Amino acid sequence: MTDPVALMQRMFRAALDAADPLRRVPAFLPEPPSGRLLVVGAGKASARMAQAVEANWPGELNGLVVTRYGHGAPCARIEIVEAAHPVPDQAGLDAAERMLQMVSAVGPDDLCLALISGGGSALLSAPVAGIGLADKQAVNRALLASGAAIGEMNCVRKHLSRVKGGRLAAAAAPARMVSLLISDVPGDDPGVIASGPTVADPTTLEMARRILDRYGIVRSAAVDAALSDPANETLKPGDSRLDGNAVHLIAAPQQSLEAAAAVAKDAGVVPVILGDALEGEAREVGKVMAGIAAQVRRHGQPGPAPCALISGGETTVTVRGAGRGGRNVEFLLGLAEALIGAPGIYALACDTDGIDGAEDVAGAIVRPETPTRAAAVHRSLADALAENDGHGFFEAIGDQVITGPTLTNVNDFRVILVLP
Amino acid sequence: MTDPVALMQRMFRAALDAADPLRRVPAFLPEPPSGRLLVVGAGKASARMAQAVEANWPGELNGLVVTRYGHGAPCARIEIVEAAHPVPDQAGLDAAERMLQMVSAVGPDDLCLALISGGGSALLSAPVAGIGLADKQAVNRALLASGAAIGEMNCVRKHLSRVKGGRLAAAAAPARMVSLLISDVPGDDPGVIASGPTVADPTTLEMARRILDRYGIVRSAAVDAALSDPANETLKPGDSRLDGNAVHLIAAPQQSLEAAAAVAKDAGVVPVILGDALEGEAREVGKVMAGIAAQVRRHGQPGPAPCALISGGETTVTVRGAGRGGRNVEFLLGLAEALIGAPGIYALACDTDGIDGAEDVAGAIVRPETPTRAAAVHRSLADALAENDGHGFFEAIGDQVITGPTLTNVNDFRVILVLP
Repeated sequence: MTDPVALMQRMFRAALDAADPLRRVPAFLPEPPSGRLLVVGAGKASARMAQAVEANWPGELNGLVVTRYGHGAPCARIEIVEAAHPVPDQAGLDAAERMLQMVSAVGPDDLCLALISGGGSALLSAPVAGIGLADKQAVNRALLASGAAIGEMNCVRKHLSRVKGGRLAAAAAPARMVSLLISDVPGDDPGVIASGPTVADPTTLEMARRILDRYGIVRSAAVDAALSDPANETLKPGDSRLDGNAVHLIAAPQQSLEAAAAVAKDAGVVPVILGDALEGEAREVGKVMAGIAAQVRRHGQPGPAPCALISGGETTVTVRGAGRGGRNVEFLLGLAEALIGAPGIYALACDTDGIDGAEDVAGAIVRPETPTRAAAVHRSLADALAENDGHGFFEAIGDQVITGPTLTNVNDFRVILVLP
Repeated sequence: MTDPVALMQRMFRAALDAADPLRRVPAFLPEPPSGRLLVVGAGKASARMAQAVEANWPGELNGLVVTRYGHGAPCARIEIVEAAHPVPDQAGLDAAERMLQMVSAVGPDDLCLALISGGGSALLSAPVAGIGLADKQAVNRALLASGAAIGEMNCVRKHLSRVKGGRLAAAAAPARMVSLLISDVPGDDPGVIASGPTVADPTTLEMARRILDRYGIVRSAAVDAALSDPANETLKPGDSRLDGNAVHLIAAPQQSLEAAAAVAKDAGVVPVILGDALEGEAREVGKVMAGIAAQVRRHGQPGPAPCALISGGETTVTVRGAGRGGRNVEFLLGLAEALIGAPGIYALACDTDGIDGAEDVAGAIVRPETPTRAAAVHRSLADALAENDGHGFFEAIGDQVITGPTLTNVNDFRVILVLP
């Protein structure tokens, strides 16, 4: 068999390629309208999506797209604004304001193309009239601390925004809007990707108020007033302002996992996809995966070795230490600790946007020799876990994976390669 | 298809049957010796193993077996002592002393049959000369708090015992010893099951001392002296006192998972065994499994629905609340919270010894209606998780699984049944 680390890297590359806007966008471009084309969008992949549109669109176009700092792409006719993520900044606020004005100005014969990807929610922030970013953020923080479910939080957030919950599409009506989406969320729900600025939202203002009541969340009079103002209702399914619109999911975690699986198969390795949306505390997910990898070696289940256990989704990290980390490297630390140098088991875990946590590092690699490599530079897995110092650990042993911003985002990519 | 809950219960029953000593012991009984047969043993399944020996042994026999309170079985000729687990008590100490005397008294033509199962380590406690149970327990507590690996803890424990690490077998020499083992440990290593009283131990007194030094564990002079006394060395591989001995693994987690898988298959459900030794924080393991179950429904991976995701092993619970819980019900709470009532997904998780945590409850069942059943009795998954109150929760909604002591022990059994 080929070098296991090289195979995992090829699999990761295939996962990225399967979500690369330059490859995915062209097939989904709509027929040119009789009027103009306006391109808008937001998200970590959206500048690259804009680049793909420019390269493949036969006619005139103009537009504005917001992406994260460092995630820009070369565009001549679509303006690319870079802004802050995950906490919005003024650049994002200004861009959202201008984007709303632009879509409001299009005519019925024009076409609006929306390029939406993960991160777009924070990048495209437009608080409803009467409240400021600080109000929104205070509610957000209270929701996060309240134990509210993610769906409940999203309901409130959408009703405090002039773009989320379909309101960007509403502003464009009566022009048609075609949305191209790249998913980074479990279930690939278009209403959840970037908080669904171009699709209907079944939740209501009343539900948002009840959620705040249920969790006893204290809010300003301005927020209270906003959540009682019918003007702030999101767009409901069946609303005529959505007539003629289309939504295309052009890339999603599962497609990237399948692409990686195909590479494994070509190399004579049995791919087993465990899930495109796995969740859980990163180090504990690592422990569970170590147990499944051990099962492959001992009993040939859920697949016979050589076997690639492939998964996506987004784990979480409860930060206790002061190290430099991200959820993928934390997952790998937990995995490696549970494996304690077991022979024949390799792993790669990376964020497909190229940034695991706040660092410019996509993720890292674990090998049977990881503990001994660590000992050679006086590092230990236990210390790294105690400090949440995944990036420090893998940097010290020379096993980081660095891609730079990939200009796409289909959440995390993990593979565990189990040799016979 | 059959009722999903009934199917899961049949699968659990098959898992228990596959590990039932009455079914497993007979095929492994040795040829009668020219001399006498002495039966000894310790563990949660060991009384039932003794019962199986009595029922099937053609000649004379006598013996002594220690099991946990409530795990006895009817025996006429083998004395069954019940003792405390997991913290040893005087009953266990006395039984260990008598057992050592009994095996020391057997002659070269006699045969010693050792019936070993999980829990035997605590049930068969015999501190080395010069130290008391309190000394041993102080070292144990310090090791647990030190961050030492389980293998390191076991090395120290074995060198403070007159039965562990093969010393029970050494005491029986020159009589032959045949060991029948029921595994509840990852990897089914005979040296780990009940701390291996009848098999060789490659670790040494010097290693035990170094481990205590490495973790800066303060110990009494008596413990220090004991760990320097060559009389306390464990039995090494190749030691002639093991000549002619045999060790048979008569039941193990994987066999029980396979038996449950066969029941699923017969019912037209695709079984996918994920691991016989999965570990991790119970609620997080539940989250990961919810993600895999979602993958079955959405993408038919790692198997097509109807699919049974089967696993064993032993999760852990970090206790923060004051509720009544165990690792299996905690796993189910985490799973149910992540599923948020997803249709078509059912689960059962039980300890195969019939006792999940300290309660006389084996485990519980999760159904799509679990959240609504809970709401009807004013319970919530979130509260139950915050309080580690799995038993209280499932009792309130009437979904406990109660078997009583099963008289076997192959660790946990979990199945998630995913319908199309």
